[in-house]
Amino acid sequence: MTTIPSSEDLTTTVFAKRTSIEQVEEGYELAPKFDDHGLIPCVTTDADSGEVLMLGHMNCEALQRTIEIGEAHYWSRSRQQLWHKGATSGLVQKVSELRIDDDQDAVWLRVKVQGNGASCHVGYRSCFYRSVPVGEAYRPNQQLVFVESGKTFNPKSVHGDALNPTVL
Amino acid sequence: MTTIPSSEDLTTTVFAKRTSIEQVEEGYELAPKFDDHGLIPCVTTDADSGEVLMLGHMNCEALQRTIEIGEAHYWSRSRQQLWHKGATSGLVQKVSELRIDDDQDAVWLRVKVQGNGASCHVGYRSCFYRSVPVGEAYRPNQQLVFVESGKTFNPKSVHGDALNPTVL
Repeated sequence: MTTIPSSEDLTTTVFAKRTSIEQVEEGYELAPKFDDHGLIPCVTTDADSGEVLMLGHMNCEALQRTIEIGEAHYWSRSRQQLWHKGATSGLVQKVSELRIDDDQDAVWLRVKVQGNGASCHVGYRSCFYRSVPVGEAYRPNQQLVFVESGKTFNPKSVHGDALNPTVL
Repeated sequence: MTTIPSSEDLTTTVFAKRTSIEQVEEGYELAPKFDDHGLIPCVTTDADSGEVLMLGHMNCEALQRTIEIGEAHYWSRSRQQLWHKGATSGLVQKVSELRIDDDQDAVWLRVKVQGNGASCHVGYRSCFYRSVPVGEAYRPNQQLVFVESGKTFNPKSVHGDALNPTVL
Protein backbone atom coordinates (compact mmCIF):
# COMPACT_ATOMS: atom_id res chain seq x y z
CA MET A 1 0.00 0.00 0.00
CA THR A 2 1.31 3.42 -0.95
CA THR A 3 1.87 5.90 1.84
CA ILE A 4 0.41 9.21 0.73
CA PRO A 5 1.95 12.30 2.32
CA SER A 6 -0.06 15.25 3.61
CA SER A 7 -1.71 17.74 1.25
CA GLU A 8 0.93 20.35 1.87
CA ASP A 9 3.75 17.96 1.05
CA LEU A 10 1.94 16.88 -2.10
CA THR A 11 1.45 20.39 -3.40
CA THR A 12 5.13 21.08 -3.44
CA THR A 13 6.58 17.65 -4.14
CA VAL A 14 4.16 15.67 -6.32
CA PHE A 15 2.98 18.23 -8.83
CA ALA A 16 5.10 20.74 -10.72
CA LYS A 17 5.88 24.15 -9.29
CA ARG A 18 4.20 27.03 -11.13
CA THR A 19 7.05 29.00 -12.67
CA SER A 20 5.66 31.02 -15.60
CA ILE A 21 2.44 31.78 -17.45
CA GLU A 22 3.82 30.02 -20.52
CA GLN A 23 4.57 26.86 -18.50
CA VAL A 24 1.08 26.87 -16.96
CA GLU A 25 -0.88 27.63 -20.14
CA GLU A 26 1.16 26.09 -22.95
CA GLY A 27 3.21 23.45 -21.17
CA TYR A 28 3.06 19.70 -20.60
CA GLU A 29 3.50 19.80 -16.80
CA LEU A 30 0.63 19.39 -14.35
CA ALA A 31 1.01 22.40 -12.05
CA PRO A 32 -2.40 22.83 -10.41
CA LYS A 33 -3.25 25.92 -8.38
CA PHE A 34 -4.99 25.26 -5.07
CA ASP A 35 -6.85 28.14 -3.43
CA ASP A 36 -6.42 29.62 0.05
CA HIS A 37 -8.23 26.59 1.49
CA GLY A 38 -5.97 24.15 -0.41
CA LEU A 39 -8.77 23.26 -2.84
CA ILE A 40 -9.30 23.22 -6.60
CA PRO A 41 -12.85 23.16 -8.07
CA CYS A 42 -13.83 20.14 -10.15
CA VAL A 43 -16.62 20.00 -12.74
CA THR A 44 -17.93 16.46 -13.17
CA THR A 45 -19.91 15.52 -16.27
CA ASP A 46 -21.52 12.33 -17.54
CA ALA A 47 -19.06 10.89 -20.07
CA ASP A 48 -21.85 9.87 -22.43
CA SER A 49 -24.51 12.59 -22.19
CA GLY A 50 -22.30 15.56 -21.31
CA GLU A 51 -24.70 16.50 -18.52
CA VAL A 52 -23.04 18.36 -15.65
CA LEU A 53 -23.53 16.13 -12.61
CA MET A 54 -21.89 18.20 -9.88
CA LEU A 55 -19.32 20.79 -8.98
CA GLY A 56 -16.99 19.46 -6.29
CA HIS A 57 -13.70 20.40 -4.75
CA MET A 58 -10.45 18.47 -4.49
CA ASN A 59 -7.49 18.90 -2.24
CA CYS A 60 -4.11 17.69 -3.37
CA GLU A 61 -4.64 14.17 -2.06
CA ALA A 62 -8.07 13.87 -3.71
CA LEU A 63 -6.57 14.86 -7.05
CA GLN A 64 -3.69 12.42 -6.65
CA ARG A 65 -6.00 9.54 -5.69
CA THR A 66 -8.40 10.30 -8.54
CA ILE A 67 -5.52 10.13 -11.01
CA GLU A 68 -4.07 6.95 -9.49
CA ILE A 69 -7.28 4.97 -8.90
CA GLY A 70 -9.40 6.35 -11.76
CA GLU A 71 -12.40 6.95 -9.49
CA ALA A 72 -13.52 10.42 -8.39
CA HIS A 73 -12.25 11.57 -5.01
CA TYR A 74 -13.19 14.94 -3.56
CA TRP A 75 -12.62 16.93 -0.41
CA SER A 76 -15.86 17.11 1.57
CA ARG A 77 -16.09 20.65 2.87
CA SER A 78 -19.02 19.79 5.15
CA ARG A 79 -17.29 16.78 6.72
CA GLN A 80 -13.76 18.17 6.30
CA GLN A 81 -12.40 14.87 5.04
CA LEU A 82 -11.32 13.02 1.93
CA TRP A 83 -14.40 11.72 0.11
CA HIS A 84 -14.27 8.69 -2.17
CA LYS A 85 -17.54 9.39 -3.99
CA GLY A 86 -19.84 6.35 -3.86
CA ALA A 87 -17.81 4.44 -1.26
CA THR A 88 -20.92 4.04 0.91
CA SER A 89 -23.74 4.48 -1.66
CA GLY A 90 -22.18 2.39 -4.45
CA LEU A 91 -22.57 5.33 -6.83
CA VAL A 92 -18.88 5.37 -7.72
CA GLN A 93 -17.78 7.72 -10.51
CA LYS A 94 -15.39 5.88 -12.87
CA VAL A 95 -13.20 8.43 -14.63
CA SER A 96 -13.13 8.28 -18.43
CA GLU A 97 -11.07 11.44 -18.77
CA LEU A 98 -9.51 14.06 -16.52
CA ARG A 99 -8.72 17.49 -17.90
CA ILE A 100 -7.08 20.63 -16.51
CA ASP A 101 -7.91 24.15 -17.66
CA ASP A 102 -5.72 26.90 -19.15
CA ASP A 103 -4.49 28.45 -15.89
CA GLN A 104 -4.68 25.08 -14.12
CA ASP A 105 -7.04 26.21 -11.37
CA ALA A 106 -9.96 23.95 -12.34
CA VAL A 107 -10.42 20.24 -13.13
CA TRP A 108 -12.95 18.59 -15.44
CA LEU A 109 -13.82 14.92 -14.87
CA ARG A 110 -15.79 12.93 -17.44
CA VAL A 111 -17.25 9.96 -15.57
CA LYS A 112 -19.47 6.91 -15.82
CA VAL A 113 -21.55 6.64 -12.66
CA GLN A 114 -22.01 3.12 -11.29
CA GLY A 115 -25.19 1.77 -9.66
CA ASN A 116 -28.35 3.73 -10.49
CA GLY A 117 -26.32 6.46 -12.19
CA ALA A 118 -27.20 9.30 -9.81
CA SER A 119 -24.70 11.77 -8.36
CA CYS A 120 -26.85 14.12 -6.24
CA HIS A 121 -27.40 13.60 -2.50
CA VAL A 122 -30.99 14.89 -2.88
CA GLY A 123 -31.79 11.91 -5.11
CA TYR A 124 -31.53 13.38 -8.59
CA ARG A 125 -29.22 12.24 -11.38
CA SER A 126 -27.54 15.65 -11.58
CA CYS A 127 -27.17 18.21 -8.80
CA PHE A 128 -28.35 20.77 -11.36
CA TYR A 129 -31.99 19.65 -11.45
CA ARG A 130 -33.54 23.14 -11.55
CA SER A 131 -33.37 25.80 -14.24
CA VAL A 132 -33.80 29.56 -14.02
CA PRO A 133 -35.76 31.24 -16.84
CA VAL A 134 -33.57 33.72 -18.78
CA GLY A 135 -34.22 36.64 -21.11
CA GLU A 136 -36.06 38.99 -18.78
CA ALA A 137 -35.23 40.74 -15.51
CA TYR A 138 -35.35 38.42 -12.51
CA ARG A 139 -38.47 38.92 -10.40
CA PRO A 140 -38.55 37.90 -6.72
CA ASN A 141 -41.61 35.72 -7.29
CA GLN A 142 -40.08 33.96 -10.31
CA GLN A 143 -40.07 30.18 -9.93
CA LEU A 144 -37.35 27.65 -10.63
CA VAL A 145 -38.26 24.87 -13.03
CA PHE A 146 -37.53 21.24 -12.09
CA VAL A 147 -36.01 19.63 -15.21
CA GLU A 148 -35.70 15.96 -14.21
CA SER A 149 -38.84 13.82 -14.35
CA GLY A 150 -38.30 12.75 -10.74
CA LYS A 151 -35.75 11.53 -8.23
CA THR A 152 -33.64 8.53 -9.19
CA PHE A 153 -33.45 7.26 -5.63
CA ASN A 154 -34.81 7.92 -2.16
CA PRO A 155 -32.03 9.76 -0.32
CA LYS A 156 -33.21 8.52 3.08
CA SER A 157 -32.72 4.90 2.05
CA VAL A 158 -29.24 5.56 0.67
CA HIS A 159 -27.80 8.15 3.02
CA GLY A 160 -29.89 7.47 6.14
CA ASP A 161 -29.05 9.95 8.86
CA ALA A 162 -25.74 11.08 7.35
CA LEU A 163 -24.92 14.77 7.65
CA ASN A 164 -26.64 16.82 4.93
CA PRO A 165 -23.84 18.68 3.10
CA THR A 166 -25.96 21.75 2.34
CA VAL A 167 -24.90 24.81 4.34
CA LEU A 168 -27.21 27.82 4.60
CA MET B 1 -32.03 52.15 -18.55
CA THR B 2 -32.28 50.07 -15.40
CA THR B 3 -30.26 51.18 -12.41
CA ILE B 4 -28.64 48.13 -10.92
CA PRO B 5 -27.79 48.38 -7.21
CA SER B 6 -24.51 47.19 -5.73
CA SER B 7 -23.75 43.49 -5.29
CA GLU B 8 -24.42 43.62 -1.57
CA ASP B 9 -27.85 45.20 -2.06
CA LEU B 10 -28.67 42.62 -4.71
CA THR B 11 -27.79 39.66 -2.54
CA THR B 12 -30.33 40.58 0.08
CA THR B 13 -33.02 42.27 -2.01
CA VAL B 14 -33.14 40.66 -5.46
CA PHE B 15 -32.74 36.98 -4.68
CA ALA B 16 -34.49 35.03 -1.94
CA LYS B 17 -33.03 34.78 1.54
CA ARG B 18 -31.79 31.30 2.46
CA THR B 19 -34.04 30.15 5.27
CA SER B 20 -33.92 26.33 5.39
CA ILE B 21 -32.30 23.32 3.76
CA GLU B 22 -35.67 22.25 2.40
CA GLN B 23 -36.24 25.67 0.79
CA VAL B 24 -32.77 25.63 -0.79
CA GLU B 25 -32.82 22.02 -2.03
CA GLU B 26 -36.47 21.28 -2.79
CA GLY B 27 -37.97 24.73 -3.32
CA TYR B 28 -38.85 26.97 -6.24
CA GLU B 29 -37.02 30.09 -5.01
CA LEU B 30 -33.66 31.19 -6.38
CA ALA B 31 -31.57 31.68 -3.23
CA PRO B 32 -27.96 31.55 -4.41
CA LYS B 33 -25.07 31.34 -1.96
CA PHE B 34 -22.15 33.65 -2.67
CA ASP B 35 -18.80 32.88 -1.05
CA ASP B 36 -16.65 35.08 1.19
CA HIS B 37 -15.59 37.05 -1.89
CA GLY B 38 -19.21 37.54 -3.02
CA LEU B 39 -18.79 35.04 -5.86
CA ILE B 40 -20.53 31.90 -7.09
CA PRO B 41 -18.73 29.49 -9.46
CA CYS B 42 -20.24 28.95 -12.91
CA VAL B 43 -19.66 25.95 -15.19
CA THR B 44 -20.21 26.88 -18.83
CA THR B 45 -20.79 24.16 -21.42
CA ASP B 46 -21.46 24.13 -25.15
CA ALA B 47 -25.24 23.70 -25.51
CA ASP B 48 -24.83 21.32 -28.43
CA SER B 49 -21.74 19.22 -27.72
CA GLY B 50 -21.83 19.28 -23.90
CA GLU B 51 -18.14 20.17 -23.86
CA VAL B 52 -17.10 22.13 -20.77
CA LEU B 53 -15.84 25.45 -22.10
CA MET B 54 -14.77 27.21 -18.90
CA LEU B 55 -15.26 27.58 -15.17
CA GLY B 56 -15.97 31.21 -14.31
CA HIS B 57 -17.23 33.16 -11.34
CA MET B 58 -20.20 35.48 -11.00
CA ASN B 59 -21.00 38.12 -8.47
CA CYS B 60 -24.60 39.02 -7.79
CA GLU B 61 -24.73 41.60 -10.57
CA ALA B 62 -23.20 39.21 -13.13
CA LEU B 63 -25.83 36.60 -12.29
CA GLN B 64 -28.63 39.16 -12.52
CA ARG B 65 -27.40 40.51 -15.87
CA THR B 66 -26.94 36.99 -17.29
CA ILE B 67 -30.54 36.18 -16.39
CA GLU B 68 -31.89 39.46 -17.75
CA ILE B 69 -29.89 39.73 -20.98
CA GLY B 70 -29.43 36.03 -21.76
CA GLU B 71 -25.70 36.44 -22.42
CA ALA B 72 -23.01 35.22 -20.04
CA HIS B 73 -21.62 37.79 -17.62
CA TYR B 74 -18.91 36.95 -15.12
CA TRP B 75 -16.84 38.69 -12.49
CA SER B 76 -13.27 39.00 -13.68
CA ARG B 77 -11.09 38.20 -10.70
CA SER B 78 -7.94 39.39 -12.49
CA ARG B 79 -9.43 42.73 -13.55
CA GLN B 80 -11.81 43.00 -10.55
CA GLN B 81 -14.70 44.11 -12.72
CA LEU B 82 -17.91 42.92 -14.32
CA TRP B 83 -17.11 41.01 -17.50
CA HIS B 84 -19.57 40.71 -20.36
CA LYS B 85 -17.91 37.76 -22.08
CA GLY B 86 -17.22 38.51 -25.75
CA ALA B 87 -17.95 42.24 -25.51
CA THR B 88 -14.57 43.04 -27.06
CA SER B 89 -13.76 39.78 -28.91
CA GLY B 90 -17.22 39.15 -30.34
CA LEU B 91 -17.21 35.67 -28.80
CA VAL B 92 -20.44 36.27 -26.91
CA GLN B 93 -21.99 33.31 -25.07
CA LYS B 94 -25.75 33.20 -25.75
CA VAL B 95 -27.44 31.35 -22.90
CA SER B 96 -29.69 28.43 -23.88
CA GLU B 97 -30.27 27.36 -20.30
CA LEU B 98 -29.23 28.43 -16.81
CA ARG B 99 -29.34 25.94 -13.95
CA ILE B 100 -28.66 26.11 -10.22
CA ASP B 101 -27.44 23.16 -8.16
CA ASP B 102 -28.91 21.42 -5.11
CA ASP B 103 -27.45 23.70 -2.42
CA GLN B 104 -27.51 26.68 -4.79
CA ASP B 105 -23.81 27.45 -4.56
CA ALA B 106 -22.99 26.74 -8.23
CA VAL B 107 -24.43 27.76 -11.62
CA TRP B 108 -24.42 25.82 -14.89
CA LEU B 109 -24.78 27.75 -18.17
CA ARG B 110 -25.46 25.98 -21.45
CA VAL B 111 -24.39 28.39 -24.19
CA LYS B 112 -23.98 28.88 -27.91
CA VAL B 113 -20.75 30.76 -28.56
CA GLN B 114 -20.92 33.41 -31.30
CA GLY B 115 -18.13 34.22 -33.77
CA ASN B 116 -15.52 31.48 -34.16
CA GLY B 117 -17.00 29.51 -31.25
CA ALA B 118 -13.99 29.70 -28.94
CA SER B 119 -14.16 30.54 -25.23
CA CYS B 120 -10.52 30.30 -24.07
CA HIS B 121 -8.21 33.32 -23.92
CA VAL B 122 -5.28 31.12 -24.97
CA GLY B 123 -7.01 30.52 -28.32
CA TYR B 124 -8.61 27.12 -27.84
CA ARG B 125 -12.31 26.29 -28.10
CA SER B 126 -12.44 25.07 -24.49
CA CYS B 127 -10.24 26.17 -21.59
CA PHE B 128 -9.89 22.44 -20.81
CA TYR B 129 -7.62 21.63 -23.77
CA ARG B 130 -5.26 19.27 -21.91
CA SER B 131 -5.93 15.90 -20.32
CA VAL B 132 -4.11 14.07 -17.53
CA PRO B 133 -3.64 10.30 -17.96
CA VAL B 134 -5.47 8.34 -15.22
CA GLY B 135 -5.25 4.83 -13.80
CA GLU B 136 -1.73 4.87 -12.43
CA ALA B 137 0.11 6.91 -9.82
CA TYR B 138 1.06 10.38 -11.02
CA ARG B 139 4.73 10.69 -11.89
CA PRO B 140 6.48 14.08 -11.85
CA ASN B 141 7.66 13.63 -15.42
CA GLN B 142 4.21 12.62 -16.70
CA GLN B 143 3.04 14.76 -19.59
CA LEU B 144 -0.28 16.41 -20.23
CA VAL B 145 -1.94 15.54 -23.54
CA PHE B 146 -3.28 18.33 -25.78
CA VAL B 147 -6.73 17.19 -26.94
CA GLU B 148 -7.72 19.89 -29.44
CA SER B 149 -6.24 19.71 -32.93
CA GLY B 150 -4.99 23.29 -32.63
CA LYS B 151 -5.93 26.80 -31.58
CA THR B 152 -9.13 28.25 -33.00
CA PHE B 153 -7.73 31.78 -33.07
CA ASN B 154 -4.55 33.72 -32.49
CA PRO B 155 -4.95 35.27 -29.04
CA LYS B 156 -2.61 38.18 -29.90
CA SER B 157 -4.84 39.30 -32.74
CA VAL B 158 -7.99 39.12 -30.59
CA HIS B 159 -6.81 40.25 -27.16
CA GLY B 160 -3.79 42.34 -28.15
CA ASP B 161 -1.97 43.58 -25.09
CA ALA B 162 -4.87 43.00 -22.67
CA LEU B 163 -3.95 41.71 -19.21
CA ASN B 164 -3.46 37.94 -19.19
CA PRO B 165 -5.90 36.57 -16.56
CA THR B 166 -3.63 33.70 -15.49
CA VAL B 167 -2.19 34.20 -12.00
CA LEU B 168 0.76 32.10 -10.84
